[in-house]
Amino acid sequence: MATLKHQLLLGTFIHSKTPQELEYRHDTAVAVSSQGKIAGIQQAGGNVDEARDTLLKELGWDPSDVDVIACKEGQFFFPGFIDTHIHAPQYPNAGIFGKATLLDWLERYTFPLESSLKDLAKARRVYTACVRRTLAHGTTTASYYATIDVPATNLLADICLGLGQRAFVGRVCMDNPDICPDYYRDESAQQSLQATRETIEHVRAIDPAFDLVSPILTPRFAPSCSREAMLDLAALQKEMDLLVQTHISENKGEVELVKSLFPEADSYADVYDRHGLLTDKTVLAHAVHLSEAEADTIAARGSKVSHCPCSNSSLTSGVARVRWLWDKGIDVGLGTDVSGGYSASILSAARQAALVSRHLAMGDDERSKLTPEEALHLATRGGARCLGLQHRVGAFEVGMDWDAQLVGLGGVDEEGGQDDDGNVDVFGWEDWEERVAKWVYTGDDRNTKKVWVKGRLVHSRA
Amino acid sequence: MATLKHQLLLGTFIHSKTPQELEYRHDTAVAVSSQGKIAGIQQAGGNVDEARDTLLKELGWDPSDVDVIACKEGQFFFPGFIDTHIHAPQYPNAGIFGKATLLDWLERYTFPLESSLKDLAKARRVYTACVRRTLAHGTTTASYYATIDVPATNLLADICLGLGQRAFVGRVCMDNPDICPDYYRDESAQQSLQATRETIEHVRAIDPAFDLVSPILTPRFAPSCSREAMLDLAALQKEMDLLVQTHISENKGEVELVKSLFPEADSYADVYDRHGLLTDKTVLAHAVHLSEAEADTIAARGSKVSHCPCSNSSLTSGVARVRWLWDKGIDVGLGTDVSGGYSASILSAARQAALVSRHLAMGDDERSKLTPEEALHLATRGGARCLGLQHRVGAFEVGMDWDAQLVGLGGVDEEGGQDDDGNVDVFGWEDWEERVAKWVYTGDDRNTKKVWVKGRLVHSRA
Repeated sequence: MATLKHQLLLGTFIHSKTPQELEYRHDTAVAVSSQGKIAGIQQAGGNVDEARDTLLKELGWDPSDVDVIACKEGQFFFPGFIDTHIHAPQYPNAGIFGKATLLDWLERYTFPLESSLKDLAKARRVYTACVRRTLAHGTTTASYYATIDVPATNLLADICLGLGQRAFVGRVCMDNPDICPDYYRDESAQQSLQATRETIEHVRAIDPAFDLVSPILTPRFAPSCSREAMLDLAALQKEMDLLVQTHISENKGEVELVKSLFPEADSYADVYDRHGLLTDKTVLAHAVHLSEAEADTIAARGSKVSHCPCSNSSLTSGVARVRWLWDKGIDVGLGTDVSGGYSASILSAARQAALVSRHLAMGDDERSKLTPEEALHLATRGGARCLGLQHRVGAFEVGMDWDAQLVGLGGVDEEGGQDDDGNVDVFGWEDWEERVAKWVYTGDDRNTKKVWVKGRLVHSRA
Repeated sequence: MATLKHQLLLGTFIHSKTPQELEYRHDTAVAVSSQGKIAGIQQAGGNVDEARDTLLKELGWDPSDVDVIACKEGQFFFPGFIDTHIHAPQYPNAGIFGKATLLDWLERYTFPLESSLKDLAKARRVYTACVRRTLAHGTTTASYYATIDVPATNLLADICLGLGQRAFVGRVCMDNPDICPDYYRDESAQQSLQATRETIEHVRAIDPAFDLVSPILTPRFAPSCSREAMLDLAALQKEMDLLVQTHISENKGEVELVKSLFPEADSYADVYDRHGLLTDKTVLAHAVHLSEAEADTIAARGSKVSHCPCSNSSLTSGVARVRWLWDKGIDVGLGTDVSGGYSASILSAARQAALVSRHLAMGDDERSKLTPEEALHLATRGGARCLGLQHRVGAFEVGMDWDAQLVGLGGVDEEGGQDDDGNVDVFGWEDWEERVAKWVYTGDDRNTKKVWVKGRLVHSRA
């Protein structure tokens, strides 16, 4: 990776201040050090040149050593998106799920494709396409499930590092012969643990401080794991203080399956709790059908939830109750859940989060509706908290890394002509809140003009 | 409009055969006459050259007089989309609706914007942007609500004709002073009728046979209309045999409002029925909260339903039961319902139709789930039936008009690089059904490479 120069970003910066509120900073200068960290933020009464000069002086940076990137009129910087749940090997199946629900979908679509990625040429092709595509969507951090295969999982870590995406990469643990197919299964709990250790050591070899790429312990979901495998991973979690990711309570059939497989447990959450996997470093995907008691336990343990609305609609799973989880004090982020989810875009996930929250409200819970501001919080700071990165990414604060996207919305000229290929049409009279709403509901990757991770430009489009 | 040459389209043609089934015709030649009509279709055992030669000979066309357009590998022709419900003046509000539901949304967002389009410069700008954008999304036919203003409504008809979009253009009738704001209301039933007649005569003046652009009678919805205005429009409908469009049973509060305003009626549907507006030329938008009896009445009258899933989720209205409507024998099409709906794309509407049908299935009606094939049927043949165009557009059959789009999906090369700016990534092993599913769930206007209406190329992108 080439050494970076200091950078100075000029213009409008928007980020999540609270779950309900975005902060808009106009005519602002943000200094990013050659280490990719935000070194200073300066806003000087409506004058961006003054802000720039003040900041340069304050930092003692020589202007000739600084790259300057200025927003065009109407553009703004926004924190990079955080995808807290995505299956990279399933990327080629995005959009393909028929009328399936979770358990038949796994058997019919998912396990065959995942298994086939032991072919490393295929894995390279699929993983490269997936990482490039998610970067183009503004995803600066992704928490990936890979496959059970060690070399292919290691390759995913290499590709993330090479393309510059902040990533958690998890080798999937699945050793229960009653649930996992013969052709795609860890041989034993012991082999599962050993293979996982190998992927952790690979990541340590390529990124010793887990600075950009980190391992994450990944028991697929309770049904696919033996008790021993879960206990082993819990011990490893304590040993290495790593993050854990798994699925919980996505689908009613799955909840019943867990009940039958773990008759000793009080609930799905209790299965993980009994096996030491419900920690404050655990990210639980879906959490659609949780009981009050389960949510209380998850809150007490400090575990996090990855909300995957596209997937939950596609697979007819249900709707996670985000505000109810928030009320319990649980941190919530967004996941694309490719390919249960059809879209690799967290902007799409944010839009669908707002929409499915309205489907809850169609019942009787009017409060459940999420605003665009709340959906964007989930997409940035919420996700950062899920992954323990709340002090590094998800917002613009001094000391944080510059993980960001430059967003540009299209304008409509006086004759009704559109100046941008994307679908957002700004007529000019919209206030900033309305522009952001247009971005959330009608935007796509065409509006993400540039993407940086840790100060490095990792994607740009004309 | 310049005179067209004959055209010969070569490649793969996909259209809806039944609501459940797409027909795939590969290596096929379709001849389109200089009048924009499909003059012949020829498929010759896997050899497109032979198909072309046979067809030219059959038609006696001189090859030098024919423009030839061939699909690239993986591309296909698909019927143009039909938007059975869209409010052109609301286009600038796409994505802006806050937490509103129907009645407060009308007051806060919609009436002020619609009213402002009496400024013809503003109307030209908004309508041009709207028509260009919908064409880019592959919408070859749109049924538009304009505003109450005659000159602005006439302008919308002019713009559709000029840009080549097949359109129904309706001046909105709303004369009930108890519901419509003072600043945006027809003065009386009489004035409402007179103004409507003026817009019809304008369309007749610019397109005498209503060949491309037609008027459509547009009582906004029962609450906004006096009984007299509805009766007048019903008489006009009989006099001129025109289509009618209105809203029905979108939102529970609206249903209650109708009950209180029309105590003499048995139901919302009965209000229209009593006033002669429930005809086999009537398109009813939404139809979310219909009773069995109402649906039976609608079916008996042969009226149609425009399903608007994006809007129904955005405004927390509910979910229309498409399969239940189909079971009753009611024709159903798709509407974007901009700007209750946030997207001007019928492809998005098709996707959301499939997704919200799964939200119904989350209750108990597993049968309610719609497939991509069914959603595409709604988007094409279903919409054509709603608008009485089933013999002209919505499919590829000899004698129909060539209203079509050329669709191209992106490919992933051996290194994982993407060859297209859109989000659809085809790896090469997908069958045609899977490619179509990817298009429905991950595609957008970037996949619509060319659009024709009545043989005229009205949109293309590189």
